[in-house]
Amino acid sequence: MANVVAPDPLDLTQRLIRCPSVTPAEGGALDLLQSELEALGFACTRLVFEEEGTAPVDNLYARLGTAQPNFCFAGHTDVVPPGDPADWSTDPFESQIVEGELIGRGASDMKGAIAAFVAAAGRFLAGRSGTPAGFGGSISLLITGDEEGPSINGTRKVLGWLAGQGETLDACLVGEPTNPDALGDMVKIGRRGSLTGTLTVFGKQGHTAYPHLADNAAHRLVRMLGALIAEPLDQGTEHFQPSTLQISTIDVGNPASNVVPGKATAAFNIRFNDSHSGASLERWLRTTLDGVAAESGGGRYELAVRVSGESFLTPPGPLSETLAGAIEAVTGRRPELSTTGGTSDARFIKDHCPVAEFGLVGKTMHQVDERAAVADLETLTRIYAKALEDYFG
Amino acid sequence: MANVVAPDPLDLTQRLIRCPSVTPAEGGALDLLQSELEALGFACTRLVFEEEGTAPVDNLYARLGTAQPNFCFAGHTDVVPPGDPADWSTDPFESQIVEGELIGRGASDMKGAIAAFVAAAGRFLAGRSGTPAGFGGSISLLITGDEEGPSINGTRKVLGWLAGQGETLDACLVGEPTNPDALGDMVKIGRRGSLTGTLTVFGKQGHTAYPHLADNAAHRLVRMLGALIAEPLDQGTEHFQPSTLQISTIDVGNPASNVVPGKATAAFNIRFNDSHSGASLERWLRTTLDGVAAESGGGRYELAVRVSGESFLTPPGPLSETLAGAIEAVTGRRPELSTTGGTSDARFIKDHCPVAEFGLVGKTMHQVDERAAVADLETLTRIYAKALEDYFG
Ligand SMILES: [Zn+2]
Ligand SMILES: [Zn+2]
Repeated sequence: MANVVAPDPLDLTQRLIRCPSVTPAEGGALDLLQSELEALGFACTRLVFEEEGTAPVDNLYARLGTAQPNFCFAGHTDVVPPGDPADWSTDPFESQIVEGELIGRGASDMKGAIAAFVAAAGRFLAGRSGTPAGFGGSISLLITGDEEGPSINGTRKVLGWLAGQGETLDACLVGEPTNPDALGDMVKIGRRGSLTGTLTVFGKQGHTAYPHLADNAAHRLVRMLGALIAEPLDQGTEHFQPSTLQISTIDVGNPASNVVPGKATAAFNIRFNDSHSGASLERWLRTTLDGVAAESGGGRYELAVRVSGESFLTPPGPLSETLAGAIEAVTGRRPELSTTGGTSDARFIKDHCPVAEFGLVGKTMHQVDERAAVADLETLTRIYAKALEDYFG
Repeated sequence: MANVVAPDPLDLTQRLIRCPSVTPAEGGALDLLQSELEALGFACTRLVFEEEGTAPVDNLYARLGTAQPNFCFAGHTDVVPPGDPADWSTDPFESQIVEGELIGRGASDMKGAIAAFVAAAGRFLAGRSGTPAGFGGSISLLITGDEEGPSINGTRKVLGWLAGQGETLDACLVGEPTNPDALGDMVKIGRRGSLTGTLTVFGKQGHTAYPHLADNAAHRLVRMLGALIAEPLDQGTEHFQPSTLQISTIDVGNPASNVVPGKATAAFNIRFNDSHSGASLERWLRTTLDGVAAESGGGRYELAVRVSGESFLTPPGPLSETLAGAIEAVTGRRPELSTTGGTSDARFIKDHCPVAEFGLVGKTMHQVDERAAVADLETLTRIYAKALEDYFG
């Protein structure tokens, strides 16, 4: 563990961005990471997973040390497509610095955070080079190339492989861009669940001049949707915002204004907190829809429900405290412990160990001119290094 | 007026059906009618109207006699397209008789009724051939070729032309197929009005995970439509069924289940009775929609309203009494005086004179294998002839 030289987080971020790793392409990003981590002494395993109907995806698990606790950093090198590069003020894979900001696809989501963690691990190890017995634990990185895509051949399968190897994670920090405005705003300690429903209502087609001979499916659908959005789902819980139901589309597609439609469909998405589960929500949906149908004299409907993630929470405790303490020590700001926002691979990791998420500022993620402040890359590196110190200290 | 020979209603119907007069084609139907009417002594005027963006349409006004009252029969020789002739059990323009029924496009709507009226006028005149001074009035026919089409170059323009000529109608019988099941069921003495509305609701697009940053246009639309269908528009009036509002379509067209839609549209049709007008309904619509918008904190919407016809009524009186009496005398059945169903050219004629509608059985109109019972053609001829007798008697 002697002679460790930590990489520079800005330089490593730039080199990672130059790897065009749009899901599911590896783009050279995992190769680059592996060589950086091997230079720090990590043992690296590449894991290519595939299944029918999906593209094969390359993943990396790297571990330094054999003792427990094993502190894991989880992230993804894959990025969403840049769209038309002409819309960008600089080439999305060139990684130029403009007025103190690094512009490029993946700058904030999340090559910058990966580089910061590698740099932080390097600094942590360099500071201990006089301690040949190690630091009483392990540091690992679980890096996938399938987070922005279908998330089938990524983190979930790596976790399964780890379990099969008897490899245990004791705490996991996910490097997603969690800060709404400024570094230090927010640590995420859980996420709401997400349920998508597709509702098709059947009536009987007819002529608007003779509605008594028809059964207007659009009317039934309006009443059903009205019942679903009539009342808030809840008032929020200790660590969660109120759950919300959002209708995403309603489609009848009847061009004839004198025709009573016989079929109408809608789709909606529910983001739900820990007072619900996918199953309890499906029961509520069916009870509510059955009630409306009964009130208006029947009416057949079909409801398809897909739960892409249950809500989860790592209650405030050692991991979030270590992170929040490191953030406060470096930035002077106390982060909010939050469960807002979309889903991430933390939804898979929470079944294996406590998990918390903290990374860069997310404002520009997935957008044209995605960027990260150069100063934030250094600050995040210090926060991650301090968290490692405190975790193992 | 001597030596009048009335045509046979079955034969004339068959010859009319053999004229392929799909709107706006004349197809020889008006030429045939004109020669039949001239043989009976009618003075005929052909009126071709056109305007920019529409096809020219041929119309016929025929009058026998110069004295008032002028009893007018109004109808149309144009027919809706037959669709695929292979779906018919006999050629739609061949006019074959199968098991006592005449099959062909226009059999019930309404070449059969036109033929019956021409035959009835012939019999009426033949019965009076010993009265050279005439019958103390006039019989006229207003036959258009644009009732099934846009109705722009048809009855409305003929009525305008008649007014310009100082030509007055004193009563008008429209030969639309008014009977739901059997000849004698129903005389129509008015029609409901029809209003079509297109509603577009604007919100703010966003992500379903952050609905507080968005404004779901689909939710606003569901609430607005819910308010429009919450209560019946009325309970019906003396001569009218309750008014009805039917949503014909709702369209958001958002394929992404995690996107909150920023725009949503719907269309609806109101069939309304004499307790409303197009203008009063538009006021009610805007007041209701404004109320929903105000309740839910604003929200811009656009409402486009088109009134294709106001409701109208010729209250039960001499014309409907004459018709109902003739029907009862011939069939032994007392017809219902009704205002149900779709629109017809009666909506233009009611501004000029009392109007009532009675024709064949409408069950198969506009359908494959449109048909009329051969026996009904003779019965209808007798009813029309009796009505002429009683009107002028
Ligand atoms: Zn990400
Ligand atoms: Zn008709």
